[in-house]
Amino acid sequence: MVYKKITLIGTSDESFDAAVDDAIDRADDTLDNVCWIEVEEMGVEIATADNRQYQAEVEVAFELE
Amino acid sequence: MVYKKITLIGTSDESFDAAVDDAIDRADDTLDNVCWIEVEEMGVEIATADNRQYQAEVEVAFELE
Amino acid sequence: MVYKKITLIGTSDESFDAAVDDAIDRADDTLDNVCWIEVEEMGVEIATADNRQYQAEVEVAFELE
Amino acid sequence: MVYKKITLIGTSDESFDAAVDDAIDRADDTLDNVCWIEVEEMGVEIATADNRQYQAEVEVAFELE
Amino acid sequence: MVYKKITLIGTSDESFDAAVDDAIDRADDTLDNVCWIEVEEMGVEIATADNRQYQAEVEVAFELE
Amino acid sequence: MVYKKITLIGTSDESFDAAVDDAIDRADDTLDNVCWIEVEEMGVEIATADNRQYQAEVEVAFELE
Amino acid sequence: MVYKKITLIGTSDESFDAAVDDAIDRADDTLDNVCWIEVEEMGVEIATADNRQYQAEVEVAFELE
Amino acid sequence: MVYKKITLIGTSDESFDAAVDDAIDRADDTLDNVCWIEVEEMGVEIATADNRQYQAEVEVAFELE
Amino acid sequence: MVYKKITLIGTSDESFDAAVDDAIDRADDTLDNVCWIEVEEMGVEIATADNRQYQAEVEVAFELE
Amino acid sequence: MVYKKITLIGTSDESFDAAVDDAIDRADDTLDNVCWIEVEEMGVEIATADNRQYQAEVEVAFELE
Amino acid sequence: MVYKKITLIGTSDESFDAAVDDAIDRADDTLDNVCWIEVEEMGVEIATADNRQYQAEVEVAFELE
Amino acid sequence: MVYKKITLIGTSDESFDAAVDDAIDRADDTLDNVCWIEVEEMGVEIATADNRQYQAEVEVAFELE
Repeated sequence: MVYKKITLIGTSDESFDAAVDDAIDRADDTLDNVCWIEVEEMGVEIATADNRQYQAEVEVAFELE
Repeated sequence: MVYKKITLIGTSDESFDAAVDDAIDRADDTLDNVCWIEVEEMGVEIATADNRQYQAEVEVAFELE
Repeated sequence: MVYKKITLIGTSDESFDAAVDDAIDRADDTLDNVCWIEVEEMGVEIATADNRQYQAEVEVAFELE
Repeated sequence: MVYKKITLIGTSDESFDAAVDDAIDRADDTLDNVCWIEVEEMGVEIATADNRQYQAEVEVAFELE
Repeated sequence: MVYKKITLIGTSDESFDAAVDDAIDRADDTLDNVCWIEVEEMGVEIATADNRQYQAEVEVAFELE
Repeated sequence: MVYKKITLIGTSDESFDAAVDDAIDRADDTLDNVCWIEVEEMGVEIATADNRQYQAEVEVAFELE
Repeated sequence: MVYKKITLIGTSDESFDAAVDDAIDRADDTLDNVCWIEVEEMGVEIATADNRQYQAEVEVAFELE
Repeated sequence: MVYKKITLIGTSDESFDAAVDDAIDRADDTLDNVCWIEVEEMGVEIATADNRQYQAEVEVAFELE
Repeated sequence: MVYKKITLIGTSDESFDAAVDDAIDRADDTLDNVCWIEVEEMGVEIATADNRQYQAEVEVAFELE
Repeated sequence: MVYKKITLIGTSDESFDAAVDDAIDRADDTLDNVCWIEVEEMGVEIATADNRQYQAEVEVAFELE
Repeated sequence: MVYKKITLIGTSDESFDAAVDDAIDRADDTLDNVCWIEVEEMGVEIATADNRQYQAEVEVAFELE
Repeated sequence: MVYKKITLIGTSDESFDAAVDDAIDRADDTLDNVCWIEVEEMGVEIATADNRQYQAEVEVAFELE
């Protein structure tokens, strides 16, 4: 059994929780067998966003078939 | 005055805030004089949980009598 | 174009999201051109606060004129 | 010449060496030109495994054509 | 559900794998519900040991009841 | 909006700047919407290269459609 | 032979050396076989202390019987 | 004698060296007694810049009078 | 309530404790509401000093009004 | 009593344990009073080796006379 | 086969690339079999230099015979 | 101008300051042109020492001729 990890950055106008869920949702759309994620970084983009954009960089681990 | 720190991982089906509170609640049940906590890691368990399980690893500092 | 970064610690009785927003609000009050923030540390002060006080240490980046 | 790095987690019921080899074997199956790996983390899964499952997270570097 | 983590250093005259197992064995003797371990440091004691003593510092996570 | 990050190592016989550009050029060839890169490591390969080979490991962030 | 490590924070109105000794003294009172300590963090509490309170966070390693 | 350190991010369309110099130039404009700088991070902004914008985050140390 | 942190390097010909106090003294001269400090780095300058100059880099946290 | 630490990278076609021993053996050949070693990095060289070459970077501490 | 690593700081009035080369040149003068280098830190000395002095701290790995 | 850095661990029965001075004294005995030192780790050896032995691991930088 081998797992692979990829790095995604989810975003949300609402909260960090929603930014993390955004990344997990995206992973679930394209990957089978998503097992866990680890939060690596959190930040807020202000200058180039209409509102404060909450960002969460996460590592997504999934099982390779 | 000496403090001791222990490491707990709280969990929640709702949010990271609730996972942190879960760990503090547990510490409050068994320890007097809890002073502060520091968040060390945050992650989400997906494969072995019914829903997404938010996890927060925290260091809990309390004063020794 | 040069950016400067300063370190603030926002606080809230409610949540980590609110603690981060507290720091950004303060930055917006006194600085023009706030561009982004990075979350450095999160913790909860218990002993010296009436309730659990959520704290978020953030680096605030703004553009120098 | 450009290299790419991906992150795999190999597993074994035997040893950490075998867990690392498990990850390299998987990389060799699907990638040409694997050049080197770096061990990032080692751990043992106990609760959800029949036996102790040794795990090794490695970064695999390979040359892009 | 709350987990607790403690830090143990296992030792062996044979190998790092055996040093890790030594720490897990000790944890299993005194704790129910050991879930996983993470390897933090590895080293070899030479001056004060008869032979090379392999040492592995591990964090042991177990579920609190 | 979700970003993905991958890790590339660019190389150059000239300079670190050129090694970074080498990695960005490669990313631009195969990815749309490259947004930013972060330099992770810099080194020089000497033994297996004709000349000193400057290497730059970078994380490349791009927006997923 | 297995060692366990715990984390203590010693305090002193005098110096960091005294803060470290404060933590070791406490460990010696309640633990047999204290073997070594490692200094993790040093700081000074000012707002809630009568004088400057020097603090030293240390990891204490002791041999389990 | 006390030094203070501040964090600046210099930018350049040319190179990392020029981005570092950009930050030092800015520090020299507004501070006396700049003593040394340390490079903390390097990156390249691509999406929001006309060309590749090289960025260097540096800590600037200067002597307080 | 928002805190700000700045970075100072105190110096002393005597000891690290005195170097830390040197930085705190300076902060107290120019800032109200200094709350705590954290020691980041310690070193000794030899080549450009008459005697060994002990240096302590500290982060100073104070409450903004 | 003063110790000195040097950094060696041992190699083996067999295992990481053997790579660590390779470095200790080399240290024992040329240094008296080797006291302990700490493992810093582990990796596997594939492209330029006949077989997988296990590598272990270790810090070797020995007592100066 | 065993490698040894030493730490050098190269300097240049021109650029970081030249500072790295300065360190490699020095290593080549006194060591056979220099294999690769890793850049650890970069900084600029200003106060005690005539011009800005670019400095690069590198680890130099070479093969022991 | 090239600097070299070596790693020493000084010891003292008295204090961390004395342990650091112990390492600098040793460096001064055998090296010309010692320029600065950086403190890397501090600890106390208890089990194998008559008294508490304060230890300071330092990096010593000196100018190569």
